[in-house]
Amino acid sequence: MNFPSQADIKEAHRRIQPFIHNTPILSSEAINKIAGAELFFKCENFQKVGAFKARGAANAVSKLTDEFKKNGVATHSSGNHAAALARAAKVAGIPSYIVMPSNAPEIKKKAVKGYGGEIIECEPNLIARETTLQEVVEKTGATFIHPYDNRDVVEGQATCALEMWEAGIDFDTIMTPVGGGGLLGGTALATHYISPKTKVIAGEPEGADDAYRSFQAKELIPMKSPNTIADGLLTSLGKINFEIILEHVDDILTVSDEEIVEAMRLIYERMKIVIEPSCAVPLAALLKNKERFAGQKVGIILSGGNVDLAKLPFK
Amino acid sequence: MNFPSQADIKEAHRRIQPFIHNTPILSSEAINKIAGAELFFKCENFQKVGAFKARGAANAVSKLTDEFKKNGVATHSSGNHAAALARAAKVAGIPSYIVMPSNAPEIKKKAVKGYGGEIIECEPNLIARETTLQEVVEKTGATFIHPYDNRDVVEGQATCALEMWEAGIDFDTIMTPVGGGGLLGGTALATHYISPKTKVIAGEPEGADDAYRSFQAKELIPMKSPNTIADGLLTSLGKINFEIILEHVDDILTVSDEEIVEAMRLIYERMKIVIEPSCAVPLAALLKNKERFAGQKVGIILSGGNVDLAKLPFK
Repeated sequence: MNFPSQADIKEAHRRIQPFIHNTPILSSEAINKIAGAELFFKCENFQKVGAFKARGAANAVSKLTDEFKKNGVATHSSGNHAAALARAAKVAGIPSYIVMPSNAPEIKKKAVKGYGGEIIECEPNLIARETTLQEVVEKTGATFIHPYDNRDVVEGQATCALEMWEAGIDFDTIMTPVGGGGLLGGTALATHYISPKTKVIAGEPEGADDAYRSFQAKELIPMKSPNTIADGLLTSLGKINFEIILEHVDDILTVSDEEIVEAMRLIYERMKIVIEPSCAVPLAALLKNKERFAGQKVGIILSGGNVDLAKLPFK
Repeated sequence: MNFPSQADIKEAHRRIQPFIHNTPILSSEAINKIAGAELFFKCENFQKVGAFKARGAANAVSKLTDEFKKNGVATHSSGNHAAALARAAKVAGIPSYIVMPSNAPEIKKKAVKGYGGEIIECEPNLIARETTLQEVVEKTGATFIHPYDNRDVVEGQATCALEMWEAGIDFDTIMTPVGGGGLLGGTALATHYISPKTKVIAGEPEGADDAYRSFQAKELIPMKSPNTIADGLLTSLGKINFEIILEHVDDILTVSDEEIVEAMRLIYERMKIVIEPSCAVPLAALLKNKERFAGQKVGIILSGGNVDLAKLPFK
């Protein structure tokens, strides 16, 4: 694949700017003290639809030609991409078809419906999702927008790091979580263009560590039975993203669910903001490897804030 | 009492500025839509020690003469004022003595100790608290800084509204919760000086409605057995504050605990920020009386974010 260029990412940012927030970057003296480093949290939990996914979906929809637009867009997702794509379609005035497993949380379905998305239910397994999506695409002529293994989606996610660099902070390291790899790939590309000396490091749950294993083996090893509290990171790495990651990511660090919950608690208690468990993974990885980041300026992308308040993991 | 003047409040703001945050003002399109008004949330949950109390304590400590300073400060509190006073004393390099009921949450004691405050435990009732405090003051010569019934504390809390007005928004109404009345009194004074046409309205829990009843009766009626989820608002109105409230507050609206939890959920879900139940009271009052605020620009002070994460009221 030819990766999105620096000009492509800047153009994507101009394209989606009317539809997204330039989210704030927050810091906490208390967490800096604990970490022994200067941390800058890019708050995509404050993003439209409550997650960075709004960026990639907006970019992919905006780039469709009118001919493709008229038939709408489709995807399969039970998470933030579902709402993000439905919203992007609504803003563009086109239909969206979202294939969701029948056991998807009611709140996620409600979000999609709230943006006017049409939900098509399927059995809760990957084969049913893909088959159902195929049927929907054939019937409607809609364009399939993959949640992460899509060049335009990656280009959109890259605008998050672009905004971080525009804030004028000289990051030694930038960290993101990694699930499908759209955010990590986009962040690595943008950072490579703007500040090649800056390290890009991902955090990944031990219970869904396909990116870590693939990175070590230098070949794509899909995840069999992921099991982690970080429900946004259950997916396996995308092909496009793996190419970018091999070339431009410096390391992937894994953490246990316990470490994730501890980092999550720190962010709730010290920063007073609501994040989903996936968001806490990079901070957990940093705290587990403090000596490696000592005294550095570290940018951390808090990827989203859509969490079931009745099921928070705090005891 | 001669109330703090506009110049006093401005001077207090200059005095405490090095020790506090000028907290951000956030808005949510989704909540505005539900409310039918334009809401501006002043986020004192992001304040030092996680609550507006940092302002009053910093102001009261800073105003002590060196002669008084050397013996330190004392108070009785199981809440945010305890940590706020301990921190203000630490910053000033003087001792602080905090009388706390023996059943105060471990996390509150930890916060006070973290700021170097000396905790003196007492039986969990008001008489024991006051007697113990008296003993501490006699023994140490420390100056008692009341949590809210103190002119310098009110002057400090007034700086919160001052910052809201400096943000250049033409508020039709400003709302706060009311417990002891320090924040409400300070907000009413600052707003009276800067924009006398703006209404100042408080929200209060039905289960601790002494301010509402006192305001109606025009005489101070203390609370007997308060019972509400809004644990920051259990105290009865202070005398100094009641004087200001009678003169400069337009109304006090009461809400049920159920309405408080619903407003709290909205803020967590839509704004992705952590607040304590007391904070949600003004929004609950607004949502209960929508027609009264329709189309207005309303400033709402979110008073603090110190909440036990294991005991959040969401189901």
